[in-house]
Amino acid sequence: MTESAFIECLRRLASHPAARGLLDDAAVLEVGGTTLVLTHDMLVEGVHFLPDDPPQDVAWKLVAVNLSDLAAKGARPLGALLGFPLGDEAWDRSFVEGLAGALAAFHLPLLGGDTVTGPRVLGLTAIGEASGPVPSRTGARPGDRLWVSGAIGDAGAGLRVLKGELGPAPALVERYRTPRARLALGQALAPLVSAMMDVSDGLLIDAKRMAAASAAAVEIALEAIPLSDAYLAAVGDGRAARIDAATAGDDYELLFAARPDRTRDVLALGERLAIPLTPIGLFADGAGLVLTDDGEPLPLPPRLGWEHG
Amino acid sequence: MTESAFIECLRRLASHPAARGLLDDAAVLEVGGTTLVLTHDMLVEGVHFLPDDPPQDVAWKLVAVNLSDLAAKGARPLGALLGFPLGDEAWDRSFVEGLAGALAAFHLPLLGGDTVTGPRVLGLTAIGEASGPVPSRTGARPGDRLWVSGAIGDAGAGLRVLKGELGPAPALVERYRTPRARLALGQALAPLVSAMMDVSDGLLIDAKRMAAASAAAVEIALEAIPLSDAYLAAVGDGRAARIDAATAGDDYELLFAARPDRTRDVLALGERLAIPLTPIGLFADGAGLVLTDDGEPLPLPPRLGWEHG
Repeated sequence: MTESAFIECLRRLASHPAARGLLDDAAVLEVGGTTLVLTHDMLVEGVHFLPDDPPQDVAWKLVAVNLSDLAAKGARPLGALLGFPLGDEAWDRSFVEGLAGALAAFHLPLLGGDTVTGPRVLGLTAIGEASGPVPSRTGARPGDRLWVSGAIGDAGAGLRVLKGELGPAPALVERYRTPRARLALGQALAPLVSAMMDVSDGLLIDAKRMAAASAAAVEIALEAIPLSDAYLAAVGDGRAARIDAATAGDDYELLFAARPDRTRDVLALGERLAIPLTPIGLFADGAGLVLTDDGEPLPLPPRLGWEHG
Repeated sequence: MTESAFIECLRRLASHPAARGLLDDAAVLEVGGTTLVLTHDMLVEGVHFLPDDPPQDVAWKLVAVNLSDLAAKGARPLGALLGFPLGDEAWDRSFVEGLAGALAAFHLPLLGGDTVTGPRVLGLTAIGEASGPVPSRTGARPGDRLWVSGAIGDAGAGLRVLKGELGPAPALVERYRTPRARLALGQALAPLVSAMMDVSDGLLIDAKRMAAASAAAVEIALEAIPLSDAYLAAVGDGRAARIDAATAGDDYELLFAARPDRTRDVLALGERLAIPLTPIGLFADGAGLVLTDDGEPLPLPPRLGWEHG
């Protein structure tokens, strides 16, 4: 049973509206006059982190990837539950140190969870409260612009540094090991956007998913995708470098659709929060993803990102 | 780093009142005029279930052990998030079938979660809403009676059947593989009790924890502990059989303290719900656990149950 077949089975079970068909970053549950935003993401050793990644950074990443889902829904974190298999004493001690740092940095209360004995499959549940409207992936409309926060590709390049495929570049490694969660940005954007999600599996695949969920087509301008100076220094520019960045994933930036008449507000918000917000594409009638480079359509790369979910 | 040392570190991090010092079955979070009850329990293959346990039953158990924590807090389930590592196709397919059955049986909406590739470490987060007052483990007072629902020891004996240590006894195996979650009972008991928890690690160790959390002593009458006919048939009666039952764990019955003047209400509730509710002990001034057999103090067995948490 492939992951997608399994998820298809789960989807049929997840008929409650709060589940959003398992097509969104988080569940959105109305209860007692408030709107909860709920997410659970796992990190598996050897899959989502490397066995010799510093345990402190693994703890950070576990917290950040979950909070990134809350950020994408404009939610304020209320707390987290940790699922932790105990193993090596030194590793576990370093993990808890890193966890302390991440909880403090994100002002995230640890509320509970479970510890077991077993292989290193870490889980975190983050519980958030909507700060206002909760954007979904389904709201993009033809004519909306597609935007992305920050820079894309750094984390993927950081992983390549760790694998020895690229020369030393500490700033990129840091982006791979200790991603941000754009909480303040997500809350501020929520009232301005028509759809929002975080970029976890790759910009192209995630944008394609937003378009599919919104029953629209999306066109992305490769040359508009924001790259960092560190990325340009380590990887260079050009079509291949940009496609690498747009398919690598692990960015945990916010990807959002906004009506053209929101452009000024979006840009002003980016300036106020000192976070680059870049228009990279356009939604249109139809379906699917179109990639262009300086206006010329490109064949889509065979791999758009991590295929699951 | 032992599990208890690790949890001690987590405890220092979990300073938010909703975490209840990580000493309770669940977190209890006030938000937007409602009281959420949140729990996350994991099952690890080879630790919490056997590799050849039917996957359908593993799914049931994953749901039930989490809902048992909600039951102990008198909460009504609102939904669940699943953390599932994909592995073997046939196993995963059977698991999702079992999950469908468990979700339906408990009227539990599946709201979201994560699927990954990795070893079989399963996690579930259950989100509940308080149906009224939320009992803690800390409220037992000297003079309160200690009660337990149902029968104790069946699941532990079922595990011994599966290990070949006892002859065939399908009813006991069923109690091991597909525990109940006493949701309706928990909600009905919540206003009547001074403290409540579920019996997961063993009756004696769990009662000792309730007494410690309540800063009281507790005395348990071994001969009063309710055993099922199936248990008596498979294991027999007597001091050793009763100590086995009281230390085996995995019962997922409710253990609660109630003032003596609640006795009639508690008994009436048990009759109404057709669930045996049995007084098995008494809280007193002091600290620690005392075990008696027909009024005579017994030395405590070296192992009171599963040591963690």
